Amino acid sequence: MHFEAFSSSELTEYLLGIPAVCARLGDDSELQVVEVGDGNLNYVYFVSSALDPRLSVVVKQAPPYLRLVGEAWPLPRERMEREVAALRRFGALCPEHVPRVFHADSEKFLMVMQRLDSHRVLRGGLIDGIVYPQLADHISTYLARTLFHGSDLYLAPDAKKAAVGGDINTELCRITEELVFTFPFEDHPSNVYSPALPATAVERLRTHEPLRIAAGEMKWAFMNHAETLVHGDLHTGSIMANEHETYVIDPEFAFYGPMGFDTGAFIANLLLAYYARDWHDREAGRDPAAYQGWLLEQVEAVWNAFAQKFEQIWRMHERETGQAYLGGPAGTRAAEAFRDVFIRRLFADTLGFAGCKMIRRIVGMAKVAEITSIKDEAVRARIEVRCLKLAEALLVQRRELASIEAVTTLAARVLAESA
Amino acid sequence: MHFEAFSSSELTEYLLGIPAVCARLGDDSELQVVEVGDGNLNYVYFVSSALDPRLSVVVKQAPPYLRLVGEAWPLPRERMEREVAALRRFGALCPEHVPRVFHADSEKFLMVMQRLDSHRVLRGGLIDGIVYPQLADHISTYLARTLFHGSDLYLAPDAKKAAVGGDINTELCRITEELVFTFPFEDHPSNVYSPALPATAVERLRTHEPLRIAAGEMKWAFMNHAETLVHGDLHTGSIMANEHETYVIDPEFAFYGPMGFDTGAFIANLLLAYYARDWHDREAGRDPAAYQGWLLEQVEAVWNAFAQKFEQIWRMHERETGQAYLGGPAGTRAAEAFRDVFIRRLFADTLGFAGCKMIRRIVGMAKVAEITSIKDEAVRARIEVRCLKLAEALLVQRRELASIEAVTTLAARVLAESA
Repeated sequence: MHFEAFSSSELTEYLLGIPAVCARLGDDSELQVVEVGDGNLNYVYFVSSALDPRLSVVVKQAPPYLRLVGEAWPLPRERMEREVAALRRFGALCPEHVPRVFHADSEKFLMVMQRLDSHRVLRGGLIDGIVYPQLADHISTYLARTLFHGSDLYLAPDAKKAAVGGDINTELCRITEELVFTFPFEDHPSNVYSPALPATAVERLRTHEPLRIAAGEMKWAFMNHAETLVHGDLHTGSIMANEHETYVIDPEFAFYGPMGFDTGAFIANLLLAYYARDWHDREAGRDPAAYQGWLLEQVEAVWNAFAQKFEQIWRMHERETGQAYLGGPAGTRAAEAFRDVFIRRLFADTLGFAGCKMIRRIVGMAKVAEITSIKDEAVRARIEVRCLKLAEALLVQRRELASIEAVTTLAARVLAESA
Repeated sequence: MHFEAFSSSELTEYLLGIPAVCARLGDDSELQVVEVGDGNLNYVYFVSSALDPRLSVVVKQAPPYLRLVGEAWPLPRERMEREVAALRRFGALCPEHVPRVFHADSEKFLMVMQRLDSHRVLRGGLIDGIVYPQLADHISTYLARTLFHGSDLYLAPDAKKAAVGGDINTELCRITEELVFTFPFEDHPSNVYSPALPATAVERLRTHEPLRIAAGEMKWAFMNHAETLVHGDLHTGSIMANEHETYVIDPEFAFYGPMGFDTGAFIANLLLAYYARDWHDREAGRDPAAYQGWLLEQVEAVWNAFAQKFEQIWRMHERETGQAYLGGPAGTRAAEAFRDVFIRRLFADTLGFAGCKMIRRIVGMAKVAEITSIKDEAVRARIEVRCLKLAEALLVQRRELASIEAVTTLAARVLAESA
């Protein structure tokens, strides 16, 4: 299928024909169109009123391929419908942290959504050392509400099963199955290693049995545990934030999967930022300790707040219905004990997925800017080795690590031991 | 929807119009129709040639309700299509242990299948103390082949996901979710307790926290772990056997669920038969020890043979494709180590599901004949308490029990301690 992206005038003409969009952009027949093109998958445009640039929307269109690679990696355009559906679903559950969709076109595989113009991509903000005082609170709310309400803990069994069947996302799950859970652990041509990364570190990913077993178990969980509608790609590049507000964007990978995949993705990216800090702050002549401390605090805060909020929503729901998930009335000691065990298991999943997500960012095809922007190869490799070391520990010890504080202590020890 | 079962002449007329059925029944225009009616769900007929009664088929038709209860418990008739699809799927994987389907009618929700006339329902055979020398070998083959080939260990990810979406079985899963995993653990009107069963034993199912937690975890696994197309109801009433042959029938509960649900169901029913033995053999003036020994041998044999065959099919498949599930080439030490851990986890699931299946047969609505036929109420209660005791241990200790021999030792100890 041949695809041609919109020209500015074509997009203007198209948008002016849609009342819901006109209502956003005011009474203006001239629009400013800027292709921002920082997505791996899609074409993304900022469109604003020429009369009043504060009136602005985002347009996102899916070409029939992975934009990062081009026509050589075809991808079904229906992914845009999935993204729209997921944005609407997550938005209904957590409107303060999900951008609004104003218009969706299932023939052009295009949507028009809220422009977040006083926010920036969180990954960039973390690279610049910005402190986001509300981040952990907001993301833990988003996680608790979305993960709970898609699951059997909330939905009636028939609604849940219909959702599982409706949210199968074969093509995008394949990307994760391969790039996160398979290729990093084998000698695959898509892997990319930084020049100074020791061969022993790469070799260990292929041969160290406890690590391989744990990664295999996480792959199995990803492919089989249809627990809830997860975002599926919740790294710090899928979050836009400022000091007061936080939005989760880009849920095109959404599918029915394990809850820990979202919590793990976010924590993994905080930990990558933590290790990358050493270079970014030293380059800027700052002591990295302060911001590193803040990052580890966010790791602790987001998990602890998530667990507390998730349990609370669950408890309230059971109180309202009078029924506990495991049978019997709400509020029994058994129901509370089950909740604790459930969260403990979800914590182990979170750590296991976090480990896999860290590893793929170091040796897999898709990198993160806080690491790739490290210009000193030796420093970069040292940081990458730390990431791999912590990732391995998270995977292998995921059921033994007793708390998120044990995780941050371990993260700091990995840093100290190789400082 | 009003439903009227076929009269003999109506069924004869219908069947004579179907060439595939006529081919089975020979050149005869007179058929013998017998409604056997021993199914909980469906109408079942034996139909044979009047000229040559050896020419015979089974006809199975789904009314729009649960036959055991009647119109008060409606059930979608499409379950017959699911059963046909599952029989064909399992039959393709394991033709020697699955009856053949000759004809399926998706308007009448009816199928015509192979008559197993020299076989009897295994549960009845076990009550009569019959030794089946091939049983463990056959069932382990059936389990290994069907559970492996429906999973991500064998299917391509897109085929697996399509199968998950296509095999959602909401109504029949609801029966299991409620009757196996929920109602037995609460004060529910559908529960049925035998008169002498001590109140403390029932109370313990509702209050003992480790047991409640474990049962809750199994419920979660049942509802979320879409590992493979399971039979979904693999008790000894779903097996027909003689000395030489073994067939698995009635897969209307088939859905994408956890592998351990099938292995656990079969083992649970062997263990129920084991405890029930005490009464049946003593009534017949026999020492129960010999047949009890044989039953425990079957528990060991079926698990050990299943594990060995499953690993072997998996290993061969990876050798043929050259690729290990967890990434990298086939045949590495990591791939073997992962297999062991996978089987170990599946063993724990098996024990957990076995525990739930045993409990539901003691306190839930649907009973098993080897227990209900015990006429001495005190003896029956003593046997039921043993079943509950072992079930609890299987659930709570499922990850600690090191081998199937540890399970049979435990089963014997529960018997000895309360003899």
